[in-house]
Amino acid sequence: MANETIQVQGMSCQHCVSSVEGAVGGLDGVDTVNVHLQEGKVDVAFDEGKVKLDDITEAIEDQGYDVV
Amino acid sequence: MANETIQVQGMSCQHCVSSVEGAVGGLDGVDTVNVHLQEGKVDVAFDEGKVKLDDITEAIEDQGYDVV
Repeated sequence: MANETIQVQGMSCQHCVSSVEGAVGGLDGVDTVNVHLQEGKVDVAFDEGKVKLDDITEAIEDQGYDVV
Repeated sequence: MANETIQVQGMSCQHCVSSVEGAVGGLDGVDTVNVHLQEGKVDVAFDEGKVKLDDITEAIEDQGYDVV
């Protein structure tokens, strides 16, 4: 299991939190996802054998946010 | 048909726009609703015989925003 903290720009409210958590949490291989709105950070625990960090950042970007 | 502009605080993104438009637009008697995110304003056209301004502001507040 890998743990990564991803820095994300543009998340402004609880709806944004839900969007990101839903998109990332829905990926096969993602164990847990926690969005820290104030800090603009997303903590993800995932199985590297099933999902790549790139897939996760892409899922976040697909929701309209910038991974920095 | 009445036209009102309601000043709303706390709308930060397109999700918020959708929430407010959905909630207000779903009220019986509301003809059109337009949210101006940058200005924090909501323009509503409605039939006063069917829905009161109070019902509209309440629908906005129920979504978690402050009507000022």
